Amino acid sequence: MKKFMNATESMLTESLIGFAKAHHDIVVLDPEFRFVRRKQAKTDGRVALISGGGSGHEPLHIGFVGGGMLDAACPGNVFTSPTPDQMLAAAEAVDCGGGVLFIVKNYAGDIMNFSLATEMYAKECGTLITDDDVAIERSEHSMGRRGVAGTLVVEKVVGAAAEHGDGLAALMSLGKRVNEMTRSMGVALTSCTVPAVGRPTFELGDDEMEMGVGIHGEAGRRRVPLRSANAIAEELVQAITDDLRAKAGSEALLLVNGFGGTPSSELYLMYDAAERQVAKQGLKVTRSLVGSYVTSLEMAGCSVTVTLIDEQMTALWDAPVHSAALRW
Amino acid sequence: MKKFMNATESMLTESLIGFAKAHHDIVVLDPEFRFVRRKQAKTDGRVALISGGGSGHEPLHIGFVGGGMLDAACPGNVFTSPTPDQMLAAAEAVDCGGGVLFIVKNYAGDIMNFSLATEMYAKECGTLITDDDVAIERSEHSMGRRGVAGTLVVEKVVGAAAEHGDGLAALMSLGKRVNEMTRSMGVALTSCTVPAVGRPTFELGDDEMEMGVGIHGEAGRRRVPLRSANAIAEELVQAITDDLRAKAGSEALLLVNGFGGTPSSELYLMYDAAERQVAKQGLKVTRSLVGSYVTSLEMAGCSVTVTLIDEQMTALWDAPVHSAALRW
Repeated sequence: MKKFMNATESMLTESLIGFAKAHHDIVVLDPEFRFVRRKQAKTDGRVALISGGGSGHEPLHIGFVGGGMLDAACPGNVFTSPTPDQMLAAAEAVDCGGGVLFIVKNYAGDIMNFSLATEMYAKECGTLITDDDVAIERSEHSMGRRGVAGTLVVEKVVGAAAEHGDGLAALMSLGKRVNEMTRSMGVALTSCTVPAVGRPTFELGDDEMEMGVGIHGEAGRRRVPLRSANAIAEELVQAITDDLRAKAGSEALLLVNGFGGTPSSELYLMYDAAERQVAKQGLKVTRSLVGSYVTSLEMAGCSVTVTLIDEQMTALWDAPVHSAALRW
Repeated sequence: MKKFMNATESMLTESLIGFAKAHHDIVVLDPEFRFVRRKQAKTDGRVALISGGGSGHEPLHIGFVGGGMLDAACPGNVFTSPTPDQMLAAAEAVDCGGGVLFIVKNYAGDIMNFSLATEMYAKECGTLITDDDVAIERSEHSMGRRGVAGTLVVEKVVGAAAEHGDGLAALMSLGKRVNEMTRSMGVALTSCTVPAVGRPTFELGDDEMEMGVGIHGEAGRRRVPLRSANAIAEELVQAITDDLRAKAGSEALLLVNGFGGTPSSELYLMYDAAERQVAKQGLKVTRSLVGSYVTSLEMAGCSVTVTLIDEQMTALWDAPVHSAALRW
């Protein structure tokens, strides 16, 4: 296992400390490492947005804490849910009277712990679950579909509405709608190695790829020989658009997301290929994002996400954001 | 070789097309793929900044084209200098009467081709060479030190001054000063694979790393057993600060740069380690940047760059930038 590290036990905290140092103008790290929160906290009764999950997917979620997006994020150990006390501590720190909305990717551990936190939290709160992965209908880690890179789109759009002052019920309804309009599917060219395990999560032959891989290196739809970028983009986009059943001419946001070990030049090549496939399906890409945002440690691979966006969602996507990983 | 690609011959153009599509609000791609330029060109006699070099280092340089930074960038084939006609075409496209400043990393091929371009360009122009790599004093590809991640700092600071309207002589003098105040050194945990070659550029054992590696996978100072992040940071920062001979208490910009295959969580951990070492050397980190900005395809590894910054350089670093890869 080749990683920049001092010891597996301290990797997460050292990485969090480095993150908080490098972005001290935007975030504050809880002294007990339970959460990262905005430096400039909301103070005026707007709803606070909190997300979290296992670490190893950075910049998700800590990189999205900041103006126009999340108020706090709770990092668990690698690929392990944060605990309810982390979520409660984060809620106490950022709730400014408007209540808290938890955004949770659909994995059994996250669902259970965020659910416990909402039960324990005495004040107004709600939960929004993302489940955008069309690869498989259920997995060993989730009832129903997994929440993957589309979570970024939900966090950005709902974050903008929360910044604007929308109430908890409106934000939950908006977030549900964005999630329903969002589908993703990924492919892995290599595995990743969880530090505490020390060996690759799965084995892939030199000429193989895992279609529909999950963001923890879980099995996807099938293992197949490596194919061209065009063929990969066609399969990913076809699976997504078959499931979305969009009207021809619909406007779409297209996200090509790297899993951590793929260079940006290849992601842009995949963006070109995916955009051509989306156009072939009759959709019009009006917004885009390309980069490694929802990762699986150092896995080589990428995912494609399509969100059908209307005028309101487009305006919320375009609204200013000032976080470590997204800024416009 | 596992890459997202359709054919080695078309990788660069397809990636450029994807890049230009995804960032059509910021850049325009020359129809003959010779350069990428700003969509909102300067029109009022300010100096135009042009950089370029072999591709495979993305986002350098195309990702830095935009308001407050470069006016155009010329991508060569992977790890191969762009040609003088690319540079001339870019100069013709962006020179708005104030002349052109070429920013060139110190490699023999780049130096030769940019030098030919300046000879052929009939109008006012100048060249700024970056050579920030302290790892080795000369290499098979360069007379003197190599230009590596510090080039980003030069492009940002000089870009801000050019935006402000400084003349060619002032920009060259500023750029020279920034380069003189900047030192870098890198380490590789894995090799990279040039698409047209199809096999790794070098071989590294499972427990080895290459200290002082170049951004094309060239040999560095020595091959050693993998060490802790703290030990790596100590060696890199020591080499840099020994060479900089800074006064205690000097202010510094610290850049931890990923080579393409290293996840951001590890880069932040390295940032923490490097920042502690820089502080130990008596310097005060007042500005920072962490991310994969000057890459070597999918190489796992990172470099550390320290720039001694004064008040003027700090203000220019802080000035607004609106490119694909840097935005604040």
